[in-house]
Amino acid sequence: MPSVTVFGAAGYTGALSAKLLHRHPSFDLTAVTARSDVGRRLDDLYPQHRVPLVLEQLDLDRHAAVEAAVVAYPHGAAAELVAQLRLRGVRVVDLSADFRLRAVGLYEEWYRVHPKPALIAESVYGLPELYRDQIRGADLVANPGCYPTATLLALGPLARAGLIQDAVIDAKSGVSGAGRTATESTHFVTADENITPYGVPRHRHTPEIEQELAAMGADVTVTFTAHLLPLDQGELVSCYVTAPDAQHTDLEALYRAEYECEPFIELVSRPPGVRDVRETNICRISVHRDVRTARVIVFAVIDNLWKGAASQAVQNLNLMFGLPEGEGIS
Amino acid sequence: MPSVTVFGAAGYTGALSAKLLHRHPSFDLTAVTARSDVGRRLDDLYPQHRVPLVLEQLDLDRHAAVEAAVVAYPHGAAAELVAQLRLRGVRVVDLSADFRLRAVGLYEEWYRVHPKPALIAESVYGLPELYRDQIRGADLVANPGCYPTATLLALGPLARAGLIQDAVIDAKSGVSGAGRTATESTHFVTADENITPYGVPRHRHTPEIEQELAAMGADVTVTFTAHLLPLDQGELVSCYVTAPDAQHTDLEALYRAEYECEPFIELVSRPPGVRDVRETNICRISVHRDVRTARVIVFAVIDNLWKGAASQAVQNLNLMFGLPEGEGIS
Amino acid sequence: MPSVTVFGAAGYTGALSAKLLHRHPSFDLTAVTARSDVGRRLDDLYPQHRVPLVLEQLDLDRHAAVEAAVVAYPHGAAAELVAQLRLRGVRVVDLSADFRLRAVGLYEEWYRVHPKPALIAESVYGLPELYRDQIRGADLVANPGCYPTATLLALGPLARAGLIQDAVIDAKSGVSGAGRTATESTHFVTADENITPYGVPRHRHTPEIEQELAAMGADVTVTFTAHLLPLDQGELVSCYVTAPDAQHTDLEALYRAEYECEPFIELVSRPPGVRDVRETNICRISVHRDVRTARVIVFAVIDNLWKGAASQAVQNLNLMFGLPEGEGIS
Amino acid sequence: MPSVTVFGAAGYTGALSAKLLHRHPSFDLTAVTARSDVGRRLDDLYPQHRVPLVLEQLDLDRHAAVEAAVVAYPHGAAAELVAQLRLRGVRVVDLSADFRLRAVGLYEEWYRVHPKPALIAESVYGLPELYRDQIRGADLVANPGCYPTATLLALGPLARAGLIQDAVIDAKSGVSGAGRTATESTHFVTADENITPYGVPRHRHTPEIEQELAAMGADVTVTFTAHLLPLDQGELVSCYVTAPDAQHTDLEALYRAEYECEPFIELVSRPPGVRDVRETNICRISVHRDVRTARVIVFAVIDNLWKGAASQAVQNLNLMFGLPEGEGIS
Repeated sequence: MPSVTVFGAAGYTGALSAKLLHRHPSFDLTAVTARSDVGRRLDDLYPQHRVPLVLEQLDLDRHAAVEAAVVAYPHGAAAELVAQLRLRGVRVVDLSADFRLRAVGLYEEWYRVHPKPALIAESVYGLPELYRDQIRGADLVANPGCYPTATLLALGPLARAGLIQDAVIDAKSGVSGAGRTATESTHFVTADENITPYGVPRHRHTPEIEQELAAMGADVTVTFTAHLLPLDQGELVSCYVTAPDAQHTDLEALYRAEYECEPFIELVSRPPGVRDVRETNICRISVHRDVRTARVIVFAVIDNLWKGAASQAVQNLNLMFGLPEGEGIS
Repeated sequence: MPSVTVFGAAGYTGALSAKLLHRHPSFDLTAVTARSDVGRRLDDLYPQHRVPLVLEQLDLDRHAAVEAAVVAYPHGAAAELVAQLRLRGVRVVDLSADFRLRAVGLYEEWYRVHPKPALIAESVYGLPELYRDQIRGADLVANPGCYPTATLLALGPLARAGLIQDAVIDAKSGVSGAGRTATESTHFVTADENITPYGVPRHRHTPEIEQELAAMGADVTVTFTAHLLPLDQGELVSCYVTAPDAQHTDLEALYRAEYECEPFIELVSRPPGVRDVRETNICRISVHRDVRTARVIVFAVIDNLWKGAASQAVQNLNLMFGLPEGEGIS
Repeated sequence: MPSVTVFGAAGYTGALSAKLLHRHPSFDLTAVTARSDVGRRLDDLYPQHRVPLVLEQLDLDRHAAVEAAVVAYPHGAAAELVAQLRLRGVRVVDLSADFRLRAVGLYEEWYRVHPKPALIAESVYGLPELYRDQIRGADLVANPGCYPTATLLALGPLARAGLIQDAVIDAKSGVSGAGRTATESTHFVTADENITPYGVPRHRHTPEIEQELAAMGADVTVTFTAHLLPLDQGELVSCYVTAPDAQHTDLEALYRAEYECEPFIELVSRPPGVRDVRETNICRISVHRDVRTARVIVFAVIDNLWKGAASQAVQNLNLMFGLPEGEGIS
Repeated sequence: MPSVTVFGAAGYTGALSAKLLHRHPSFDLTAVTARSDVGRRLDDLYPQHRVPLVLEQLDLDRHAAVEAAVVAYPHGAAAELVAQLRLRGVRVVDLSADFRLRAVGLYEEWYRVHPKPALIAESVYGLPELYRDQIRGADLVANPGCYPTATLLALGPLARAGLIQDAVIDAKSGVSGAGRTATESTHFVTADENITPYGVPRHRHTPEIEQELAAMGADVTVTFTAHLLPLDQGELVSCYVTAPDAQHTDLEALYRAEYECEPFIELVSRPPGVRDVRETNICRISVHRDVRTARVIVFAVIDNLWKGAASQAVQNLNLMFGLPEGEGIS
């Protein structure tokens, strides 16, 4: 049974990763580390997760003596830790953006100087529906951002069919997407009874979406904006695709053909709600034609903390270690 | 002091109209009628409005003996009542869609057979920022839909400047927009912690938006979708405008020039939240350029029950009766 | 593997029972019936439950050909169905109030004429922490109300120690407790940003609480009130106990001794929140002494749909059929 | 027109006081000061309040050159500032707890060493329904806590009638009651879908409640607990009163007689919800008899930021300056 450490388990996605691995039948969660709240029990911070481990100060000698790691550090800080873990032979799923972009220049344009650019080549983009085979053999998996996860699953069939000419993506996320840090914008009284756009007009998930759309054959520059919703977990992307060549395409058949064997994708005929996938690894998708404008509209919902982060990390670990893909997350 | 009746005051927009007119210094609210809940006091149904009137069964002889009326009936039912009120010389603000579309064919394509098509010519579209002068002299004002209100205020300056080539409008509204009827989708447990697209791909506010964009010079077919948010009052429209000719336009200056004298429009530099305008007649707008795609992004927030319905109705009544435009709603 | 039918699966508690039994490793859910929504798939009504069964019209010959049944009918209607199921030898967990009160007169005082009083003697009150052994041998288990579940677990140790002289119970529940029927009070716009007391001063869970407190030795008349909270699932009872003889009792030790072997009770030192137990069968309890008034204050939280209804029903079924008590609900 | 400064206007209650005074027809709001966010405009921090003033660093020479002040400082810090303002002859409404308790020893038991005990004698407890005449002549008014406001209005008639033998007060408040500071407990993801008791078993509003109950003739030690609700503004107190002598009292008549002339108290027969009084200075009360236990149950709802703080401060200022009591807050 592979041993695993979660690094950075005080935040929402790290803590949920710890929960899923703690109850996972085929992984042995040996430690959880944190940069804040060291010494506090994880089930004190997150009673609902019921993980009876104490958050420990990072001690690589001890914490890296494992076969697998989930790294839930902020962008930039993650790369340094990942490099050290890889040196020691640990197989890593990294929740940060540090290894998602293939072009270091793109990373540096949207984020900051890359601390470990040499490692990029080694990493695989961790969206199982796109890179299942590569993930199986990977030692470093860059877990996708929550918005790219939903968007790429929504647009994949159209992209691969060469139908996307242009796309506007209007994304909405619950407050947990903003992280655990208490700020003016995550204060209940600010977020409650409110909806606010943010990251306009340059949200950092944009290049990740464009990179993977291009990898699927759709070389487009997209408009992507995000909005903060008054709910805790859940994410919806509403995708408006200019697709003049899709006029005679049977869209439902196209999606069905692409996704009928995917265990975590559900196709529905009516637009889905985020409640439908709460606390699951499922992405639920509906596709519609706006005959008046010859646009295709695709909606996709995920739980931003699950398929958008932690349960997808476990899905990747399952693949990496030859386990059933849905073990511990179904 | 003009006397006024609110017809259909058991619903959210009618009840709020009654509240605003009851406390209005220059109108005399003489009666409130309803089709359900007859005999119940309005301040029992809506304690927060504090209108101590009893909901009455419609009795035209009594209720139409006024100078002004607000009609808050469903589409189709409104036209019949409006016709009778006009016959008796009552000046009407109609909250329904019955007199918003100039072309009866368009109405019949999106709604139903029009009960009183002859009255359409007499009506004025009640968006004061567009038709202030015509409203002053009107006897029948068709109060705009909530989504068209926000969208047209958001896109007006671009439309009049001839800059709109195409537009995607992603709209989000609180549950009060779905009305007072208790249904599966308005049940707390359905709407809470959820967001769901609806009216896809043919929301009935679309032709109203296109009609008025065309009247401002933008002859476009738009993609419009709506989403139900887990909040009570508030509405955001996120407008993605293809506007290649706007590349060298000073967008902020354009909007400032158009709106600096408008008492109920606020221009802001950062994207607004719906909380900013809760329980006001204000529309708050921000405009952004997405230089990567040459799109212009415009956000507008209103309170769907206020500027999206009841307080705009009062704004129209104020204009019709020569009162200060903001009286009773500032 | 015992076969089981859920009767009345269109409502919240019946649907959740179906979900838990559908994924239960040791029960075979063969059918779900309903009185409304017949013909609709359960995973259409409740996507999040993912039960791919069609709601069927009641047909006893078919639906009663099982070993076990969960009945989720309204009070009064349940008793009739339970009687028929018992005649056919089906072992039943009944979620209604029909068989909770031992004294038929008490039932008739608080509810209505009892349709099947003869069956009361046969039933066991389904709170495993109180009646575990009797449930094991029972053919008819009356699943407790949600408020009694939380209250009795909160007060049990004090009651058995003979320390309760008087008690005020202030209970708060999420809107799912009001059921799936769409009404004025369950409408999102009514319940959102609100809290309202209800069932004052005679909530029907009162006699059930008093009966079981008396069974534990505390013969008291309690004041019980309930409040509707703006959240979907979750319930908190705040119990204020006049307990002059408890002044020198080590309350934490008392509770620990009573509950240390209980798999679904968690004792905590700080007051719990309902989020701590969301979607679990757990009851979390804290006990405090108000030295100024010589009162003991006990807080208990449960998920009203889980431990307050459906997962407790499964816990009872597990006991009845000799399965591990926590199977399918841990 | 009296000039007024709000000191500490960056917090919720100070900011709302500023809003109410800014739009007040008979006060001239000349400045707003703050300890954080100096230099930021108040309508940037609180768009919904629309107060176009910049938060200034405290400068007594300038800011104390007014006739009236509202002090919205934390406990302890307020007393120092109040003393300086009084030295300069400014009439003060203090929102802190510093001058609410008559006995300095009680203050020091529940709060901290009192910085200015000599000023206590000069202050009047600012609950107009109890001390209207004294407030009129006062130079220093101690604005009550939100929980004492609701509780004392709920229990006043019973207290003055000598009917209270014992009382349990279970209070519930929206998150704004916890203030603007972003913390783990005010984070949206913590408070949403949750309810948590806090301040158990010694909430600091307890002595304030007991002091004023005693002043009305009810010399009782009460049990008081508070709970945090998932809503922004609103507060409910549920009061359970042991009142054996009230068995033959006509409770409704008692309350009506006491309150029929009070402009901001509404008596209702069914339990009120906090939505009924949102953004008003109103306290809504219902009284019930639990015949089974001979208890009287009283519910009272207020908006914790309005009647519980800022609008009550304005009510007090109105009285102090001989203005109509409801000016600017009706």
